Amino acid sequence: MFKFEIHKKLEGALGRAGIINTPHGDILTPAFVTVATKASTKALTPEQTRDAGVQVVLANTYHLYLQPGDELIKNAGGFAKFMNWQGPTMTDSGGFQVFSLGVAYGKEISKVTTITDPNFLIPERSIGTEAPLAKIGNDGVSFKSHLDGSLHYITPEKSIEIQHNLGADIIFAFDECTSPTETDRYQSEALDRTHAWAKRSLEKHKELEKQKAEAENSQNLAALPSLRGLRHGQDFPNSPRLPQALFGIVQGGRSEELRKKSAEIIGAMDFDGYGIGGSFAKEDMETAVKWVNEILPEEKPRHLLGIGEPEDLFMGVENGVDLFDCVGPTRIARNGTVFTKNGKINLMNAKFVNLFEPIEKDCICYTCTNYTSAYLSHLFRAKEMQGATLATIHNLYFITKLVADMRASILNDTFQEFKETFLKNYLS
Amino acid sequence: MFKFEIHKKLEGALGRAGIINTPHGDILTPAFVTVATKASTKALTPEQTRDAGVQVVLANTYHLYLQPGDELIKNAGGFAKFMNWQGPTMTDSGGFQVFSLGVAYGKEISKVTTITDPNFLIPERSIGTEAPLAKIGNDGVSFKSHLDGSLHYITPEKSIEIQHNLGADIIFAFDECTSPTETDRYQSEALDRTHAWAKRSLEKHKELEKQKAEAENSQNLAALPSLRGLRHGQDFPNSPRLPQALFGIVQGGRSEELRKKSAEIIGAMDFDGYGIGGSFAKEDMETAVKWVNEILPEEKPRHLLGIGEPEDLFMGVENGVDLFDCVGPTRIARNGTVFTKNGKINLMNAKFVNLFEPIEKDCICYTCTNYTSAYLSHLFRAKEMQGATLATIHNLYFITKLVADMRASILNDTFQEFKETFLKNYLS
Repeated sequence: MFKFEIHKKLEGALGRAGIINTPHGDILTPAFVTVATKASTKALTPEQTRDAGVQVVLANTYHLYLQPGDELIKNAGGFAKFMNWQGPTMTDSGGFQVFSLGVAYGKEISKVTTITDPNFLIPERSIGTEAPLAKIGNDGVSFKSHLDGSLHYITPEKSIEIQHNLGADIIFAFDECTSPTETDRYQSEALDRTHAWAKRSLEKHKELEKQKAEAENSQNLAALPSLRGLRHGQDFPNSPRLPQALFGIVQGGRSEELRKKSAEIIGAMDFDGYGIGGSFAKEDMETAVKWVNEILPEEKPRHLLGIGEPEDLFMGVENGVDLFDCVGPTRIARNGTVFTKNGKINLMNAKFVNLFEPIEKDCICYTCTNYTSAYLSHLFRAKEMQGATLATIHNLYFITKLVADMRASILNDTFQEFKETFLKNYLS
Repeated sequence: MFKFEIHKKLEGALGRAGIINTPHGDILTPAFVTVATKASTKALTPEQTRDAGVQVVLANTYHLYLQPGDELIKNAGGFAKFMNWQGPTMTDSGGFQVFSLGVAYGKEISKVTTITDPNFLIPERSIGTEAPLAKIGNDGVSFKSHLDGSLHYITPEKSIEIQHNLGADIIFAFDECTSPTETDRYQSEALDRTHAWAKRSLEKHKELEKQKAEAENSQNLAALPSLRGLRHGQDFPNSPRLPQALFGIVQGGRSEELRKKSAEIIGAMDFDGYGIGGSFAKEDMETAVKWVNEILPEEKPRHLLGIGEPEDLFMGVENGVDLFDCVGPTRIARNGTVFTKNGKINLMNAKFVNLFEPIEKDCICYTCTNYTSAYLSHLFRAKEMQGATLATIHNLYFITKLVADMRASILNDTFQEFKETFLKNYLS
């Protein structure tokens, strides 16, 4: 039930427009995947999320494993049913969260940094030697919950089991996400682990998929998760019974050699698609994406993990990325920062207090259609929750439409013009 | 454009079912009015509020006067347009907020208390003698903003001016809300002030209404608030240009003599309807409402201010109250407390963690139709904003449906049975 088809390629570049079929619906690519960390798009209902243009949501394995637990979500019929999202879903591997909330907890590590950022050189030590909350071994990662300090141990097999319980349409192999500042030696060791873990993830996934298929064929429903749920019933299928697609993750830090090696090794494994992982220095991102996508099999989809700034989305699309996810657009919205074609603005700025115009005059999102900047300014100043809701709707509409427009421009052979015009205004 | 019509009366009691016509739509009565304190139903969009069964929203004059200011809201086209609520609206007089946020700020004064409550006897002193944040004089009230400490002075005329700027369909005369524990002498003096202020409110209101009508007739649009707003346009009328209805407020504390005197005096004035005000001891509420409603003109609507517990709603409806407003249902929702036919429950209770059933199996609100108690429990434990949204929707649906069912039971001659059955389950 999982299929990827390319509709058109960018001339002279790696980019392409296509479609991914999943058991819960299609994803037109390139696509921006919205993050629903704990099985909720923060501040929005699923209907508001869909109406903002979102095709697919991604929940975090690490968070849902700790709270409310993957067994509970399995009993609920999978996280899509649990949160009432009637469309395609993804879960990440948990690798990045173990890194950022475990190994690097409190160290302000983000998906993107810059080499000139004073924080860039902070985590110089090798991860795993004196890790405060997590310890990485060759078999898996032990870590303390950031919620209650409880001890946990995640192996590739465990990550896949959890993701089968969560029941997303697309899941990821367990990987080790390293800081771009690690030593070459550490990067190389970590990459070997990621490759070994990818193989183990794939084996575990195939084993679980085989069990599902056999149980389904033999009508042995007792072996399957129960169909407990709402008495009102919902006619979309129960996720845990449906086949899931597994993406492998390419790592390799800043090294051309390691990135290419990783793309070769992961790309040769029988995954349904590929993630490009890492904590990037902004300057390195484009070269890293190019090195990798020139090697990965063209006929399978690629997901640039955790990236979502408009300029990075253009770079990724041009260089053959099909999927992006990022907490950025929703997170900044909750602080009153919204996208406009001329860059980001903060609604707490004094000039919006009396501005009886929408955030963007030609935006047709729910927020811009119905509310003035003055009202949004009031909501944020008065600390009303609806401010977060309305700003999130606008930002999701803006970013999903931007990627949808990139897709249209690939189909229309106008990608370069669209990119130049947009970025000229946006970055000015 | 403001009209009240009684469809049916309760036999042998003061209760009735009817309809209020306003320039922005009808209100079937009895009705529960939802509070949108700062021009937002906390955690909900206007569409979610309407879908929960809400007919009319009430904003707080005191809050909007301080933030973002009534002049700004006048320029926005009134608070209904500002917040995108396309239905009837009300504003309160500001009197209760001056009392609770000014005079009694920090003293945990609520609309309802019990005589046996240890807090009941705390504010023994006469209001106005050593008031910490507010000082009541015969001409008006001076007070410090609870937001920034700035000084303000509100007279009856000022309250009416503010409420004309806010532009609600139904507004209230400025009153003094006293604690039920005040001395008889103070209650009597305060009541005289409330009556004098009612007269001044009515005079100011008539003057402003006359100006509006003259400007409208002479097409002197320049004298009217501008129609600045969204370019997308909305075809519902601009509130500040439309006639507003003014309700007088009956006070009188716990005294039968004062309550009756107030109903006589306020009821004889040419108001469009009446509010019943006060900070009630729960035990006194029924007698106070009866005393007052036996005297108030039958052909005008009555609003019991700030009351919203199910048992109080039955009491009020039976005794001739047509409108109620209360922050209770929405406030408790944000803490995870929801109504059920068997009383209130808190979703943080451990038993809901694994309960794959809606809050109420036969409830057809958006929340119960789409989400399990287990999911709501997860949202509150994970501190996800959507928990507040979904619980608020359920509570508003529950309370507006309860009052709508009371209305139906009056029309069907089954009010007493409905009341007994409901309260037997609810209070058990």
